[in-house]
Amino acid sequence: MNETDFVGARLGAFVAGTDALPPQVLHEGKRSLVNFFGCAIGSGRAAACDTLVRVLGAFGAGGKSTLLGRPDRLDPPEAAFVNAVSANLLDYDDTHLRTVIHPTAPVAAPVLAVAEARGRTGRAVLEAFVLGAEIECRVGNAVSPQHYARGWHITATCGVFGAAAAVARLLGLSPEPTWHALGIAASQSAGVVENLATAAKNVGVGSAARNGILAALLAEAGYAAAPAALEGQLGWAQASGGGDGWGEAMAALGTRWELLDNTYKPYPCGIVMHAVIDACLALRQQHGIVAEQIAAVTVQGNALLLARGDRVVNNERDARVSIQHCAAVALLYGRAGTREFTQAAALDREVAQLRRKVTAVLAAEMPVGAATVALDLADGRRLAHTVLAARGSRESPLTDRDLTEKATASMGDAGLAANAAPLIERLWALERETDLRGLMRLTRSNTG
Amino acid sequence: MNETDFVGARLGAFVAGTDALPPQVLHEGKRSLVNFFGCAIGSGRAAACDTLVRVLGAFGAGGKSTLLGRPDRLDPPEAAFVNAVSANLLDYDDTHLRTVIHPTAPVAAPVLAVAEARGRTGRAVLEAFVLGAEIECRVGNAVSPQHYARGWHITATCGVFGAAAAVARLLGLSPEPTWHALGIAASQSAGVVENLATAAKNVGVGSAARNGILAALLAEAGYAAAPAALEGQLGWAQASGGGDGWGEAMAALGTRWELLDNTYKPYPCGIVMHAVIDACLALRQQHGIVAEQIAAVTVQGNALLLARGDRVVNNERDARVSIQHCAAVALLYGRAGTREFTQAAALDREVAQLRRKVTAVLAAEMPVGAATVALDLADGRRLAHTVLAARGSRESPLTDRDLTEKATASMGDAGLAANAAPLIERLWALERETDLRGLMRLTRSNTG
Repeated sequence: MNETDFVGARLGAFVAGTDALPPQVLHEGKRSLVNFFGCAIGSGRAAACDTLVRVLGAFGAGGKSTLLGRPDRLDPPEAAFVNAVSANLLDYDDTHLRTVIHPTAPVAAPVLAVAEARGRTGRAVLEAFVLGAEIECRVGNAVSPQHYARGWHITATCGVFGAAAAVARLLGLSPEPTWHALGIAASQSAGVVENLATAAKNVGVGSAARNGILAALLAEAGYAAAPAALEGQLGWAQASGGGDGWGEAMAALGTRWELLDNTYKPYPCGIVMHAVIDACLALRQQHGIVAEQIAAVTVQGNALLLARGDRVVNNERDARVSIQHCAAVALLYGRAGTREFTQAAALDREVAQLRRKVTAVLAAEMPVGAATVALDLADGRRLAHTVLAARGSRESPLTDRDLTEKATASMGDAGLAANAAPLIERLWALERETDLRGLMRLTRSNTG
Repeated sequence: MNETDFVGARLGAFVAGTDALPPQVLHEGKRSLVNFFGCAIGSGRAAACDTLVRVLGAFGAGGKSTLLGRPDRLDPPEAAFVNAVSANLLDYDDTHLRTVIHPTAPVAAPVLAVAEARGRTGRAVLEAFVLGAEIECRVGNAVSPQHYARGWHITATCGVFGAAAAVARLLGLSPEPTWHALGIAASQSAGVVENLATAAKNVGVGSAARNGILAALLAEAGYAAAPAALEGQLGWAQASGGGDGWGEAMAALGTRWELLDNTYKPYPCGIVMHAVIDACLALRQQHGIVAEQIAAVTVQGNALLLARGDRVVNNERDARVSIQHCAAVALLYGRAGTREFTQAAALDREVAQLRRKVTAVLAAEMPVGAATVALDLADGRRLAHTVLAARGSRESPLTDRDLTEKATASMGDAGLAANAAPLIERLWALERETDLRGLMRLTRSNTG
């Protein structure tokens, strides 16, 4: 068997040996990172992160790596764990639609934590992130769709490969130890879909980030893995339920880029809800609607949308998968950002009142991701608007400016409004940073 | 669905609520721990452990938990990682034959690391270990044999459940958070058979130990998991290839004890070789044979034994799975301990010379685990000896004294001969220790 027949060998050579990354890919990397910083900073002070920092902080204290949107620091493995969790906490981060991987959280978090501790450049960070995300999504392609369908939380299980590859690149590892790092990652790949609605989800995602660092550091120190740890008969893909997609998944490395298919959410709720919100916002703006005028709201969509409808809304999690809540806040406030999906918004009386006026109706023929919203007004008028491709979809991607605004809003929520413009400006010019530590200071909350 | 229908709920109630452990089970726990300490101390200074400590030590420095057989200390998660690795490094530790789990390494290591940091009693350690090992083996039963056959390294994948349960017990968690700890473990279960012949194996085993601590600490701090994280449709057992054995695996909790089926190796090599060594030792002793008298050695056994035979021996790993090497050292030295499986022994000229005289012959009708060794002597005599159940098998278990001698020899190899008697004596009376820290000091190597 030739070395180049092994998946890990090919990926290792690609990660270690790719020098000229296309400008378009580097730019998409920055878009992913701007979105990542906003999400992570926005959720940095969430209760789930507080708990995590209390537990991990008992061990990693005195570290050099920033926790985004928090005042504390930890060692790189623990900081990567926490930052991956905060970025992915609300599933408000990015989505590689083919695999449903949230690519950036488990890959950017370890790269940034290690880069900060070692004072690496912005260019090194950007390249490591882009290459790691590429590995993560391609490994995901190889085992999709059966992997997620069996119960593997693919953001966690494939995230660790991306994290290992990215940190290996950042450390400057040659092809062979990078191959070993990927193989070591195979013995750490974990996370189940059953746990998605609980805090245990965070542990899977955070572990992927942390374990990628460990895989790369151990490979750097001489630890080896089996040549076919990913694809072998008793390796990761076969054990986890089969993966015969390696051929296509490994094709056109360096010419086809999975990261270019990354998508970003304009609203912190289930992606199938986004067309509903777009339609409500359009109706509100075009017709100058205020809530008092609305007698009834009818939402139409296919079964995938309706599956999430008609739930009682008692908390934030319910709100994020409720058609009624999404329509109500968009119509009431003209926006659907993080503030509209807090516990306070979920329990708000005005919101609840408007939610009760919303009915969801199956329109089986409508395409996935589309929605029609019809308003019956108190004066007897009926207004309707259909959205076929929601903002943030591949057909209607968020612009750079949209991403800047989204991250700015999240930083504002986190009490870091003053740092938003300087931080985001520096992220758009990330390759000019000579030492990541300066940039990272802008992400820290100063309120204990 | 009733709470008691969930696997995690039943295991959580068992772990948190079992007070009177049978004396026989507690004694088997001590046997497992004596064996664990010997193995871990014996391998503490192995190169694989040095590397691991160099990498992990960059982060966990200043910790309070002893690394067995080493001069350094780390925080509990990292110490648990390292000690689980050293205990299992040579597969010289224990074996739960039904699942082929090495039960003690991933469970005892986290219990000891946390107990030492918190100054807990010997009784608390013993009970936590026994209950954790029980959970580990029962979860293993539920998914065996298909789990290992698919490529999951069951010591790592099930070890994390045992580690989580044991640490939860040590922390005094009530049934519900113990249930959550097991569910959080489900999102961290990892390790593949493909990597077994490499250092990546260590990462799987060490991670299980470390992640069990994290699962228990996070559950203590309020992190929740899905009720059916282990057995649900999208949970761990189904994702990893199915497990329909929960009924039998959960039966007779507290009356049937898997730990009573634990076995211990007298020789640091493949378990199928043990009967070969026993037969050689018997022939040598009974007939006063010296190597010069031997013209030829013929080993007979079934296909499982022969599968490992006729390999070239270039290093320690080869030696441990070589019929020829095992027969040669037993005949030459009258022992087959750790010193007979070092790199020096593998390359020794006298050993190599005797290895060349050994032929392995298939005897398909012989039972698993049996071997016949026949010696053709220079004077024309032919001597033969058959062993049906090797020392250390369930039919011929190592005695407490055997285990003491094994651990004593390992500690001698590690330069800790003077501490062996006091340490092992205290382990046999573990329930009398009021603070684990005293005992742990005896395990430390003072040579940097």
